[in-house]
Amino acid sequence: MQVDAAMVESILNGDRRILARAITLVESTRADHRAQAVELIDRLTQKGRSALRIGLSGTPGVGKSTFTESFGMMLVEQGLKVAVLAVDPSSKRSGGSILGDKTRMDNLSRHPNAFIRPSPSSAALGGVARRTREAITLCEAAGFDVVLVETVGVGQSEVMVADMTDLFLLLLAPAGGDELQGVKRGIMEIADLILVNKADGDLKPTAVRTCADYAGALRLLRKRPQDPKGFPKAMTVSALEEEGLEQVWSEIRTLTDWRKEDGAFDANRARQAEIWFQDEIRRGILAQLDQDEALQKLQSELREKVTNGSLSPDAAAAEVLLALKSSNQVG
Amino acid sequence: MQVDAAMVESILNGDRRILARAITLVESTRADHRAQAVELIDRLTQKGRSALRIGLSGTPGVGKSTFTESFGMMLVEQGLKVAVLAVDPSSKRSGGSILGDKTRMDNLSRHPNAFIRPSPSSAALGGVARRTREAITLCEAAGFDVVLVETVGVGQSEVMVADMTDLFLLLLAPAGGDELQGVKRGIMEIADLILVNKADGDLKPTAVRTCADYAGALRLLRKRPQDPKGFPKAMTVSALEEEGLEQVWSEIRTLTDWRKEDGAFDANRARQAEIWFQDEIRRGILAQLDQDEALQKLQSELREKVTNGSLSPDAAAAEVLLALKSSNQVG
Repeated sequence: MQVDAAMVESILNGDRRILARAITLVESTRADHRAQAVELIDRLTQKGRSALRIGLSGTPGVGKSTFTESFGMMLVEQGLKVAVLAVDPSSKRSGGSILGDKTRMDNLSRHPNAFIRPSPSSAALGGVARRTREAITLCEAAGFDVVLVETVGVGQSEVMVADMTDLFLLLLAPAGGDELQGVKRGIMEIADLILVNKADGDLKPTAVRTCADYAGALRLLRKRPQDPKGFPKAMTVSALEEEGLEQVWSEIRTLTDWRKEDGAFDANRARQAEIWFQDEIRRGILAQLDQDEALQKLQSELREKVTNGSLSPDAAAAEVLLALKSSNQVG
Repeated sequence: MQVDAAMVESILNGDRRILARAITLVESTRADHRAQAVELIDRLTQKGRSALRIGLSGTPGVGKSTFTESFGMMLVEQGLKVAVLAVDPSSKRSGGSILGDKTRMDNLSRHPNAFIRPSPSSAALGGVARRTREAITLCEAAGFDVVLVETVGVGQSEVMVADMTDLFLLLLAPAGGDELQGVKRGIMEIADLILVNKADGDLKPTAVRTCADYAGALRLLRKRPQDPKGFPKAMTVSALEEEGLEQVWSEIRTLTDWRKEDGAFDANRARQAEIWFQDEIRRGILAQLDQDEALQKLQSELREKVTNGSLSPDAAAAEVLLALKSSNQVG
């Protein structure tokens, strides 16, 4: 794949086929692909296009796909262009099921104003972060208005997604009050909107009660000074019956407008760009270690001494660092 | 502080004053101290002395200090030498309170066969890991039989402690069944023994019930193939009334003996040494970035372009990596 003016132009024109190929390029770990990806991302960054980046998290079974389908359809029917990216660091095990089953988003996946990209089937968390950040940039350049970044609620992935989006939605199922504490405090703290899904049929009263419980819990958390009164907020929705979705979008816009006026929106993006910058520096340095054959050989020799206890890990590491310096001097 | 034969000898002879000074040395981040620490650790590692390394975790209020006092006293009264190290990555905020209040371990802290070292008042998680690993090595060289590494139950610190100890105790308070899920699954999975404390007075029936609940939860978790039948195990203890402590020690020895015979004990230590080795390599490479003034200046210039959106983080990182290579070539 050649990164040339024609490719850049195609992406800027919103060509879905080229966009999909560009995302495949940024997912690749091959050195030549990487160089092309960096060039492509840099050329597109300079165009300065931007979408609203929304993070969405929820455990399996909470109705994430149904919500994405309903919420996404509502947005595209308003004339907005919507891209959906999936982040699933666990997909190595699960075989990349998140959004992989596109039939669960039948209408959205076929809509001309929508673009859905499932999670790649194997990637480390660090690789997922890079790939997703770059895919967001590609989607923004392709003219999407909203980029929805969806993740399952496992470990670090929610914090990672929150670090690359403008606001964060947490989707929850109706539940007894006892289960409230099952939601990690850290996740409650990054959520801007808590959406209690399945507020329909028999579950509706439970959903309303659960929502009130979460609203109470949110009041206990320290309010973020940069947010308007009432945020973070808990709401009920029914993705199945498409209820409450317009209100979710209205709250999202209220919060976004407030943050833009306040300067918090841009400050957050600048902070995220810096996190990305630092991450890439670290990743690049560590990659050097993995690519140098002599260093790999030295490490494996030292590893043997370290594991049999004849050399301290500290001293062994010092040897590797010295060799790394020398290898740079020669190369 | 000079790392010389006399200092090494003093530590090997169990001189507490020199041991305390050596731990202060490994806690220092100054470059010259670091070089001395690496040399000292390497010389002591070669002596091959080893203690049983026990990790202990529990949330504040669960009775960790009381347990450490009672359990430690029982061990020293059997003639064993016991070192207690505290790990508290949050102590930057809390002012290093963990074990800082030695009056809570009045008897143990005054006992000639015990050595207690509070958590330093400020350190990043990475720094805490290095400091604690090295402090363990120092205590082993000083002839301690048991090194108890105590941590509060916050975030990653438990996993970190589990990665540097031979077995892991989780101390819990008696609680209603509803609160069971408050314990993160990940922590349940690293615990070898779950100890429900405060099994005394009015709380005793609750403690017994809580213990049964945890025992049930443990059965649901996948059994580790390298462990004997019945492990991981849940037990009740009363640190206050010094009840159940002998049985805890007996279970620890059963599990340790089994693992030693099986080879799992040594395999685990080898794995931990390798983790330490890799951590130190990474840390060393990243430290290079922070120490080079020209690189710092370049980073701050690029950071400005990155945060105002005129340069992609990827491209900026590539520039830093190139400069790092050149700086190595010159230096």
